[in-house]
Amino acid sequence: MTRTIDLVADLGEGFGDWRMGDDEALLDVLTSANIACGFHAGDPRIMDRTVAECVRRGVAVGAHPSFPDLVGFGRRAMDLTADEVRTDVVYQLGALSAFARVHGTRVAHLAPHGRLGNLVATRPDYAAAVVDAVLGVDPTLVVLAQDGELASAARAAGLAVGIVGIADRAYQDDGTLVPRSKPGAVIHDADEIARRTVRMVLDGVVESRGGVLLPVAADTILLHGDNPSAVELSRRIRTSLEAAGVDVAPLDADALRP
Amino acid sequence: MTRTIDLVADLGEGFGDWRMGDDEALLDVLTSANIACGFHAGDPRIMDRTVAECVRRGVAVGAHPSFPDLVGFGRRAMDLTADEVRTDVVYQLGALSAFARVHGTRVAHLAPHGRLGNLVATRPDYAAAVVDAVLGVDPTLVVLAQDGELASAARAAGLAVGIVGIADRAYQDDGTLVPRSKPGAVIHDADEIARRTVRMVLDGVVESRGGVLLPVAADTILLHGDNPSAVELSRRIRTSLEAAGVDVAPLDADALRP
Amino acid sequence: MTRTIDLVADLGEGFGDWRMGDDEALLDVLTSANIACGFHAGDPRIMDRTVAECVRRGVAVGAHPSFPDLVGFGRRAMDLTADEVRTDVVYQLGALSAFARVHGTRVAHLAPHGRLGNLVATRPDYAAAVVDAVLGVDPTLVVLAQDGELASAARAAGLAVGIVGIADRAYQDDGTLVPRSKPGAVIHDADEIARRTVRMVLDGVVESRGGVLLPVAADTILLHGDNPSAVELSRRIRTSLEAAGVDVAPLDADALRP
Amino acid sequence: MTRTIDLVADLGEGFGDWRMGDDEALLDVLTSANIACGFHAGDPRIMDRTVAECVRRGVAVGAHPSFPDLVGFGRRAMDLTADEVRTDVVYQLGALSAFARVHGTRVAHLAPHGRLGNLVATRPDYAAAVVDAVLGVDPTLVVLAQDGELASAARAAGLAVGIVGIADRAYQDDGTLVPRSKPGAVIHDADEIARRTVRMVLDGVVESRGGVLLPVAADTILLHGDNPSAVELSRRIRTSLEAAGVDVAPLDADALRP
Repeated sequence: MTRTIDLVADLGEGFGDWRMGDDEALLDVLTSANIACGFHAGDPRIMDRTVAECVRRGVAVGAHPSFPDLVGFGRRAMDLTADEVRTDVVYQLGALSAFARVHGTRVAHLAPHGRLGNLVATRPDYAAAVVDAVLGVDPTLVVLAQDGELASAARAAGLAVGIVGIADRAYQDDGTLVPRSKPGAVIHDADEIARRTVRMVLDGVVESRGGVLLPVAADTILLHGDNPSAVELSRRIRTSLEAAGVDVAPLDADALRP
Repeated sequence: MTRTIDLVADLGEGFGDWRMGDDEALLDVLTSANIACGFHAGDPRIMDRTVAECVRRGVAVGAHPSFPDLVGFGRRAMDLTADEVRTDVVYQLGALSAFARVHGTRVAHLAPHGRLGNLVATRPDYAAAVVDAVLGVDPTLVVLAQDGELASAARAAGLAVGIVGIADRAYQDDGTLVPRSKPGAVIHDADEIARRTVRMVLDGVVESRGGVLLPVAADTILLHGDNPSAVELSRRIRTSLEAAGVDVAPLDADALRP
Repeated sequence: MTRTIDLVADLGEGFGDWRMGDDEALLDVLTSANIACGFHAGDPRIMDRTVAECVRRGVAVGAHPSFPDLVGFGRRAMDLTADEVRTDVVYQLGALSAFARVHGTRVAHLAPHGRLGNLVATRPDYAAAVVDAVLGVDPTLVVLAQDGELASAARAAGLAVGIVGIADRAYQDDGTLVPRSKPGAVIHDADEIARRTVRMVLDGVVESRGGVLLPVAADTILLHGDNPSAVELSRRIRTSLEAAGVDVAPLDADALRP
Repeated sequence: MTRTIDLVADLGEGFGDWRMGDDEALLDVLTSANIACGFHAGDPRIMDRTVAECVRRGVAVGAHPSFPDLVGFGRRAMDLTADEVRTDVVYQLGALSAFARVHGTRVAHLAPHGRLGNLVATRPDYAAAVVDAVLGVDPTLVVLAQDGELASAARAAGLAVGIVGIADRAYQDDGTLVPRSKPGAVIHDADEIARRTVRMVLDGVVESRGGVLLPVAADTILLHGDNPSAVELSRRIRTSLEAAGVDVAPLDADALRP
């Protein structure tokens, strides 16, 4: 039986004349894109072009909503009420959905960006707010998340959930990530990252620093495109997966529904 | 045969803690609302509440997209390319559509705001841009416009068009409005405005300053709610229409399609 | 010896066409104004007009910098770095200073707005950031604050500090404010507020709910103008102070320097 | 007698995490910088760092105010009133002035950006608005402009004016620039640009396409840093000027005053 995996990255994170990352290169590697919706990055022209390119190459379109903080790129926590989170997500999801319709596709998934993405994993009120937004706008969307409050709340609401696998972070023996403040938290060796990704996908395990084989259930692998070596690593990961017989394809919402 | 007319006004034009106009009072008078989409006014909370109130009272929801100019309230011309107009309209229409879905309705019409609303009447490229946006996002929408480029382009594209009747402006004998710079351009007498509205709707004519009966084809009447007397006048117009046997109801897109 | 007190309130908190509070009425009561600088409210036109009116009436001009959150009116905490706070304050203070120069005056004080105003009382890093901004731009400014980190850091840096007295909040016997979540936290009776203010100014004490006379050292009293009764209360406070022989006048920076 | 010339370019035109141009490289070539003030680009951190670097290297600091259009980079005309232009310029100039004070310097000049920069050359009302802003905030500033309404209005008001020389544009025999729409409007050959610059500075002439020697009076030469070849060209221009015995130094306001 062939194992299938999705490859996802953040796209369209420029604003006006400003660019960020090499979207052009990444689009050849990805199967899904988290597209900025104007609150931390992205403007109507960039959203339009990015969706058009995704459609042209068969890359699934996803919404990447954020706290409203352009100058902070959505990386700074903001003490919004849950209702503010819900309505901000509805707004951004709706805006991207219109570009999807213009280009003959639909928004296939939603993945909160930056600090909002961190907080939905730990704040049940924010997780519920995102779930409410998705239920209200389009309950057939896949919610992308790491394990945490958002994944739980989305499943409890009957939504399809795609777990995001992180291949370049070291794990402790207890299954948690090595904190970024500790040495060795981020793995930089491309060979090792590619090997870990293949194992994560084929065997459903990742090896901790103490040698413990931890079970992981990744539906998609998060890639980066901020710099040339990140793009190169992303290509390497895809090549390694394909060489191992893995089928690289967008998420199948039906298979992810609880 | 009963004559039917729609009554429309701009709603949801606050931002954050700031309010503008008495939406609460107007909602009892209107049958359609032009709802600000965040570029000149309106934020996700205000959009959410305004759509919810419209649904509760059977008022049709419309998008009111603008140039991106919050501090100028969309009243200042901006030299955007047609593609910038198109993508800005797609974005705003999409955002409002998501709130409509959340509240179990759909966006029924679109009416460009402020200076953009003026320019689409005279600039064919902007008119085409708005038509493209509507065709791409939802070709069943009614385009609200005064006679001009947008109305023509929308009809040529097969879109439903609702002509907006203006009851408080004086006309010259040649059928054009008395320019705002001239004395008497705006009619302030409530009785006269109500009488003119009823005649516009029942007989399809408006009387010019020289006494000429000019044909007018209004599908909706534009009301205002900026101040208490505007709200009172709006109520007066509705009452007069009903007293004259006119059926006040939202636009019927099918009847407006060319 | 005559006791002198300053009366201060937030002014210029509209944006574009939106208004907030009755600045016109308050300007006749105040001796100092905290003027919004564009990040939570205020735009260049409003700042210009507000400074002009302050100059015309002899009201001292103060900067009221905020977190960059227009839609949230600066009321939502944002997890900025201290350097982001410092540079945001420098920017806002500079912008207001230019309007002051245009109108032949100078910025006399600075009072952080909203949530930033709360956080500088408890976060030493934010307090230090505000102090650094003031030292860098104009060390002759008075820093307005309640007792807390900002007041301490400003004094330690040799800056003039004006303590803001709050007359409409109840105190507990230990000298802390009754939390807003508790009944009776806010005093609504105008007579009582006016009496407490006079006593605060003349005797330097405020009576706790348990009848304890707590020492308070207010250099300025914070007034409000959000609604007609707040404006009326503000007038009442000024009248009561003047009737009690208190001299109502702007802050004297030299007298406030440590 | 040694001829002196200033070299100026736009700096600090990133926003948040986004960068534009190679400021680091340009700072070694320039003697003056037009620094973005937050309306088309630039944020408080970028302004702070850019001013600090200018001070460190002896580069004169200038304000580069713009229409308020971040997503359009200030390149789109906006139909502001003259008072809106004046107050927007005061705001931006003030904000930058505060960073100048923080770093122990002052704003030495002002040069309107992008479309505003074009319009002040032809619209007397906008030119007067900029002059009013400078007179109000700091009449010792040098106003940078090409020949046109702003230069005239500034001189008439007694302000120092620095004429910006453009070395990479072809001239027609009548002394006007070859329009950008015509072939050959922009000169791309680095040798030729360097030669023209030296001649412009030493002899006060530029040769038209028909071979006519046109008098030009440049006080500063506008350089670019948008791409590696622009930076390289900028270095080349400076080297050529120095090799020809020209003294490259910031503008002398006193010498430029009428």
